Amino acid sequence: MKQFYDLADCGTEEVGRLLATARRLQAHPDPHALEGKVLSLLFLSPSLRTLASFQAGMARLGGATFVISPDMSIHGLETRPGIVMDGTAAEHIREAVPVIASYGDAIGIRAFAERRDIDADIADTEYKGLGDLCETPLINMESAINHPCQSLADWKTMDDLNIPAQGGKFVLSWAYHPKALPLAVPSATVHMAAMRGMDVTVLRPDGFELPEPIMEKARQAATEAGGSVRETSDRNEALAGAHVIYAKSWSSTRHYGDRMGDQKLRTGLEDWCIDDPWFESADPECRFMHCLPVRRGVVVSDRVLDGPRSVVIQEAQNRMYAQMAVLYHMMGSGE
Amino acid sequence: MKQFYDLADCGTEEVGRLLATARRLQAHPDPHALEGKVLSLLFLSPSLRTLASFQAGMARLGGATFVISPDMSIHGLETRPGIVMDGTAAEHIREAVPVIASYGDAIGIRAFAERRDIDADIADTEYKGLGDLCETPLINMESAINHPCQSLADWKTMDDLNIPAQGGKFVLSWAYHPKALPLAVPSATVHMAAMRGMDVTVLRPDGFELPEPIMEKARQAATEAGGSVRETSDRNEALAGAHVIYAKSWSSTRHYGDRMGDQKLRTGLEDWCIDDPWFESADPECRFMHCLPVRRGVVVSDRVLDGPRSVVIQEAQNRMYAQMAVLYHMMGSGE
Amino acid sequence: MKQFYDLADCGTEEVGRLLATARRLQAHPDPHALEGKVLSLLFLSPSLRTLASFQAGMARLGGATFVISPDMSIHGLETRPGIVMDGTAAEHIREAVPVIASYGDAIGIRAFAERRDIDADIADTEYKGLGDLCETPLINMESAINHPCQSLADWKTMDDLNIPAQGGKFVLSWAYHPKALPLAVPSATVHMAAMRGMDVTVLRPDGFELPEPIMEKARQAATEAGGSVRETSDRNEALAGAHVIYAKSWSSTRHYGDRMGDQKLRTGLEDWCIDDPWFESADPECRFMHCLPVRRGVVVSDRVLDGPRSVVIQEAQNRMYAQMAVLYHMMGSGE
Repeated sequence: MKQFYDLADCGTEEVGRLLATARRLQAHPDPHALEGKVLSLLFLSPSLRTLASFQAGMARLGGATFVISPDMSIHGLETRPGIVMDGTAAEHIREAVPVIASYGDAIGIRAFAERRDIDADIADTEYKGLGDLCETPLINMESAINHPCQSLADWKTMDDLNIPAQGGKFVLSWAYHPKALPLAVPSATVHMAAMRGMDVTVLRPDGFELPEPIMEKARQAATEAGGSVRETSDRNEALAGAHVIYAKSWSSTRHYGDRMGDQKLRTGLEDWCIDDPWFESADPECRFMHCLPVRRGVVVSDRVLDGPRSVVIQEAQNRMYAQMAVLYHMMGSGE
Repeated sequence: MKQFYDLADCGTEEVGRLLATARRLQAHPDPHALEGKVLSLLFLSPSLRTLASFQAGMARLGGATFVISPDMSIHGLETRPGIVMDGTAAEHIREAVPVIASYGDAIGIRAFAERRDIDADIADTEYKGLGDLCETPLINMESAINHPCQSLADWKTMDDLNIPAQGGKFVLSWAYHPKALPLAVPSATVHMAAMRGMDVTVLRPDGFELPEPIMEKARQAATEAGGSVRETSDRNEALAGAHVIYAKSWSSTRHYGDRMGDQKLRTGLEDWCIDDPWFESADPECRFMHCLPVRRGVVVSDRVLDGPRSVVIQEAQNRMYAQMAVLYHMMGSGE
Repeated sequence: MKQFYDLADCGTEEVGRLLATARRLQAHPDPHALEGKVLSLLFLSPSLRTLASFQAGMARLGGATFVISPDMSIHGLETRPGIVMDGTAAEHIREAVPVIASYGDAIGIRAFAERRDIDADIADTEYKGLGDLCETPLINMESAINHPCQSLADWKTMDDLNIPAQGGKFVLSWAYHPKALPLAVPSATVHMAAMRGMDVTVLRPDGFELPEPIMEKARQAATEAGGSVRETSDRNEALAGAHVIYAKSWSSTRHYGDRMGDQKLRTGLEDWCIDDPWFESADPECRFMHCLPVRRGVVVSDRVLDGPRSVVIQEAQNRMYAQMAVLYHMMGSGE
């Protein structure tokens, strides 16, 4: 595997192999698999799970990592092309990225989402520009529009918990949040659940529709896998019989990149906080999922998050096992 | 070993085994002992020795570490329970801590000392609240009231230097410092020296008495080990015949959490700076100990710190060997 | 090898052995060579390549590293001798450095260049003061006046590219930069190229002469190796027939430590930006070298840096292989 950018690129069969490897490495550690191998990690936006789980996962396979992020004592990084660098930035990413990549056998990049131009973010211009600078195998640690590591971990979590694939009802629900957040997780999640063959409902207030290209990609995946994808703002209709409520906040797509317009639209939506009543008409075994970090009392109530429905810690732990599978397929000798 | 919280929990026999393991690993490296194992390190307050020595020690045993601290580019952490997170903090420790713990085979936590309510700090509420969130074995890397890694290293240092246990005279002396510091090191130290069977004197100005529960715990340890514990503000009486002067500054317990009251009390105590005259009536071989970091010219004079009595670097180096023993007993296959 | 401070200390024969080891480790990885070994890394000024390449290189040899830098959550560091530490700094480097060193089998130190007193910087007072505090083998990760890791990597890069040693024409050219930069790289570079037996020209505007002791040292190396060293401000004369143009900005030595004087002197020198015309009279195969980070459009044009002459990424990657050789000779069992 030379790239891990999007589960859609892998196809169902490769996802199945990755999940099998993840389960195997969880059950049977292989502490020599990546001996002498190095993974470069470049973070251009904040991280906790990704930062920790890639370091831990690589170490469990006998390999090593190093981390570079702009909050470290490195030279200020310039990202704009063709600029005369007479300001404060002392290094351009056109040098920094290939140099960092050259020290590793693979590189993970977490890009920033510009959140100005929705077409540029859907096209993942920023991430792809960075990736073009690397010659080593490349892992998407979250880009403007994708988060395949999270999706692989979420898929494994649902498998671990025997949540039905065919016939399973997956609700991706928008939730209130004081700030406009990126589209990466909702876009990756709707596609992942569809690719798993589930009946997916995107529940969101008006003005927070997911972009049409994202929905269309999810619908295609659903068609291939025997599931379905639909979108609604009707909470009652969406939640009936749900096996999973996956909460996430995201930017208004109607006012993308327009902070004031977004802010105005979300005012009054504070009741989009997932709480016990949301589960009343759901399947009795219905689980609560979230990628973390999550704002308590804002996105979800304490009693749901601390209750037996919540599997957020399992999702986070599966980040490590899912990524170990990716690393193994990318750098392991048998692959 | 599932917890390393306090030498008192270990008991003399287990401390003896840990010290034996520390000596053995120092003399005979064992670079495969913790192969494939991961130690999570969570720092909620600043660190140098602990940060470096846990990473180095784990590596010397063939394992690996990852570090999370709030000064890294992670999401702002909320610690208050039951709060509506609509401010700047994007993640609650109730998720962050179990997630971080889930990536490791053991976790080390350095908590912050609130230093507002002395009973809460003696009860170590903050640390224990964090520890309750972890299911993996847990190492106390300094809490409000304890620092067992420092104590184990100090015990080993005294053993290495043949400082007498039974009959050895140990003076824990308060020292001047411009700021009110936590009680962790003095509390751990008085207990450790008592547990080693030494005759312990706590030398401090009035208003800086150690809390009664701490003194009582040390007295019990002394009774069991054949030593003694007393407290005085009389420097001459305290220092006569001392084998060790262990300097440390700490908060006024009379004005705990009251910055103005503490400040007022310490004004004029600038002569509590350990200098050559302090050793005049001490044992000729008397050593100077301090946990570091230490303020030169404030807590101790340059000539003492740079002179032959000072063993502060050995203490710091023994942090690594002592912690390697803890890690080995916690995660090694033979334990 | 107990010290890696300056290629001049190594001598030509040892440099040859280091380069051979670097080539061997690049071609034939040796992931067990430094098993159980730890390298301490202390950064007192910003770094990207050094930070990343030492971590990656040590890991490729089976060893481990830990990093300490003042931007981490450590206690503020005091550097002045004999001071009463009643301000904000809580720890003195006289303790911090030996402690950090004591956890490793070797230590790498990146010092800061004071850039106040040119004689002190040429004598490398700051770095040597830090090194005197360490008992472990010591690697210079850049001091006020030297950067042997960069020089060894540059030497390897020229060997890899078959750039002639005897008879090879090496131009070290000053370049414009908005700030006054240290003398470490130009000083190390002029000596390295001379030691490789090349005909070295230092091309710089008046007022930016390299210090006489640096030039004299380079001339001696040239004499031994059969090359030559000269200095000029005449661009046409300097560049004719060049096999390498190595660009670097540095402080005015006429106004060293005088920011206003330096600034005044560099105003109007913006055309010292290496661009295509600089290569017109050079050897057709002439390469562009720079240690990075480099300011695009200021030190060098985009078209040169992105064009086929530029070998800056190779230089950066060779940092890792060159340093692996140093680490191997320093800590490997066969050395």
